[in-house]
Amino acid sequence: MRDVLPDEVALRDWAMAQILAVYRRHGFVRIETPAVESLRLLLRSDGGENEKLIFKILKRGEKLQAAGRPDDMADLGLRFDLTVPLVRYYAHNHARLPQPLKAIQIGPVWRAERPQQGRYRQFTQCDIDVLGVASEVAEIELILATTEALAALGLKDLIVRLNDRRLLGAMVAHCGFDPARAGAVLIALDKLDKIGRDEVAAELREAGHPADAAGRLLELLGAVATPAALRTLLGSRADDGVWQGLQRILDTVAGQAAGRFRLAFDAALVRGMGYYTGPIFEIQHGDATSSIAGGGRYDRMVGKFIGRDVPATGFSIGFERVIGILMHRGSSAETDGPRVALVFDDTMDLAPVLGLARDLREQGRHVLLETRGKRLGKQLQDLEARGFRRIGVMGADGTVEWRAPRAAGTGETKA
Amino acid sequence: MRDVLPDEVALRDWAMAQILAVYRRHGFVRIETPAVESLRLLLRSDGGENEKLIFKILKRGEKLQAAGRPDDMADLGLRFDLTVPLVRYYAHNHARLPQPLKAIQIGPVWRAERPQQGRYRQFTQCDIDVLGVASEVAEIELILATTEALAALGLKDLIVRLNDRRLLGAMVAHCGFDPARAGAVLIALDKLDKIGRDEVAAELREAGHPADAAGRLLELLGAVATPAALRTLLGSRADDGVWQGLQRILDTVAGQAAGRFRLAFDAALVRGMGYYTGPIFEIQHGDATSSIAGGGRYDRMVGKFIGRDVPATGFSIGFERVIGILMHRGSSAETDGPRVALVFDDTMDLAPVLGLARDLREQGRHVLLETRGKRLGKQLQDLEARGFRRIGVMGADGTVEWRAPRAAGTGETKA
Repeated sequence: MRDVLPDEVALRDWAMAQILAVYRRHGFVRIETPAVESLRLLLRSDGGENEKLIFKILKRGEKLQAAGRPDDMADLGLRFDLTVPLVRYYAHNHARLPQPLKAIQIGPVWRAERPQQGRYRQFTQCDIDVLGVASEVAEIELILATTEALAALGLKDLIVRLNDRRLLGAMVAHCGFDPARAGAVLIALDKLDKIGRDEVAAELREAGHPADAAGRLLELLGAVATPAALRTLLGSRADDGVWQGLQRILDTVAGQAAGRFRLAFDAALVRGMGYYTGPIFEIQHGDATSSIAGGGRYDRMVGKFIGRDVPATGFSIGFERVIGILMHRGSSAETDGPRVALVFDDTMDLAPVLGLARDLREQGRHVLLETRGKRLGKQLQDLEARGFRRIGVMGADGTVEWRAPRAAGTGETKA
Repeated sequence: MRDVLPDEVALRDWAMAQILAVYRRHGFVRIETPAVESLRLLLRSDGGENEKLIFKILKRGEKLQAAGRPDDMADLGLRFDLTVPLVRYYAHNHARLPQPLKAIQIGPVWRAERPQQGRYRQFTQCDIDVLGVASEVAEIELILATTEALAALGLKDLIVRLNDRRLLGAMVAHCGFDPARAGAVLIALDKLDKIGRDEVAAELREAGHPADAAGRLLELLGAVATPAALRTLLGSRADDGVWQGLQRILDTVAGQAAGRFRLAFDAALVRGMGYYTGPIFEIQHGDATSSIAGGGRYDRMVGKFIGRDVPATGFSIGFERVIGILMHRGSSAETDGPRVALVFDDTMDLAPVLGLARDLREQGRHVLLETRGKRLGKQLQDLEARGFRRIGVMGADGTVEWRAPRAAGTGETKA
């Protein structure tokens, strides 16, 4: 975990406000769940590897005294994503929520990973989800809203990749894998970008899958560039509805993209989580192979909580990655006009300086007050270096001497 | 802990944005610390009763295996306030921070309290702190910024109460208490508003303080309405600097209040935390006896971390109480213009409805898309009840039939 310094917080707040504004314009409403959930909930959530990374909270008082083994000493845990809490929230509150629910969630999640470059144990996720819509209208809205949010941050050169979990299942069966072991095949296939074809094939062979199935699958993935090509190969292994839905998403989203992003079918796209049941999608930026947003349909997750299936789709922005890109390109939060610093003598009556500050603030200016230190020149230089473009020094008589702003990078020309 | 429903989240986000905007105009910058800190830090922080309420996080892996007793099984904890993390943050990062630091913090804190009405185990705090300013200019700025932030939320009828910990110490000594036990006397005195004079006096007697000291103290508090009156009584027990500082804060802030709030010296104001060293203050709203904001100077806390004292002052808004007041009066988040809902048939080409939505969103409108359900009348009523003031039903030919908005509360007059 880490501290965030003021300039990065300003950028994060700005980015979050941009994303939130776009999502609200798209009719989504923000919800909030607590950071802490019951451990029982978190551990039965299909969270896969993430369940091993839960920060567990020690029981308290008598309950702790009564606990025998370490396994029995925790009752709560920090959430490791926003999807499990969303589903729990929907189950608890659905009578008081709009139907269908179009929810925004922005907040920290925690995973007890080994510390490594660029990975933190507390990080922010930014999700939108549609609960209660079975139509691919939901996927279309998620993709349009998320690409617009990323564009609002100045991110161009976006590619949306699209696939369907049911097609992956059909491909796995078509190539001769045991359909009952499809999940394990997909986990291996998901590493294709990172470790390459040979390693994936080796991993599948070693896991005891049929010897030639891996080769067939990798060959197929290399050969099919369009849904039509894949459909010819798979024949009746996938329903008409799957193809029609996929095509409707592709056509409709492409019609709205208007040059803001590219859209591509990608038969090799897997997405890690085990709970997806239909279309899956992710967004890449520029030449990076890792995604900056990802999501998909998970129609069978709510049913585990409320006993009847509720169709659900979600799209999550990797907020830390997006902030990393913005920091790397030197973006900074936009403020309204130049920031002002007023320096004054602490022994004077404060009314004139407070009055001037109030007037400037009423115009929307950010105004910093600083008492005059022993070395005024150094103090003014520091304020300039911190980005204050208007700096005034107030005398005891209430008059202000405004310091002429230096042209960026040129330094002072007069002594 | 609790879930927050969409309308309350919208109000909270709006209130937070208002407060943040005021604080930024006052030259404060937002910082962020992680929710989780080392338990060792949290337990040596002078946090008083709050230390007993820490949610402790179980060690992981080998470290957990090696731990013997429950006391040894946790290494991290959830923060119980924002002041302890601020001081740790300042100690770790001060070379990279503006000096003096004027910090905003907004975020959740956690306390393992017994659940009770209106108290939650996760709640939001909203603090500003000035680190590095010994002058009472810091107190003046904190009071002006905080009252302006509360006014921006529409809260009128605010009273700022002001006292000084050093005066409390002098009063306690003057009345015949043992100065070494001043802390315990103040803890009892802090309950005056809640339990009354007789109970406080009884508690002090039972704790073995001199029999007549309690009576003298309570009589004194009832008798002194101004700093001048108290100064006459205390004589040389408090330094000239204390009186001058207090008077400067009172005069300067009163000169800026301009009817937006009242300001009063209150010799009986204590504030709970043990770490205060100078001026202390809180804000009450209307007739409520409990405060909605509180703070003070804590000049000796940073020194415990970095070996040299750094003057520090802070003011914290009780965000949950403020939201409670706003909810109670039926406030809701302001949006830009009426929200629009577009209802359309899922079988149609989506391009027309997506195009219309895009146009409206580019004008800043919040636009919700909904596929037409089986019972259109009910659907439209639900949308109205949810606050959509413009509802359009799009036909397959792309034409929109706008539903005439009903006057609030009158119901339909035509069949």
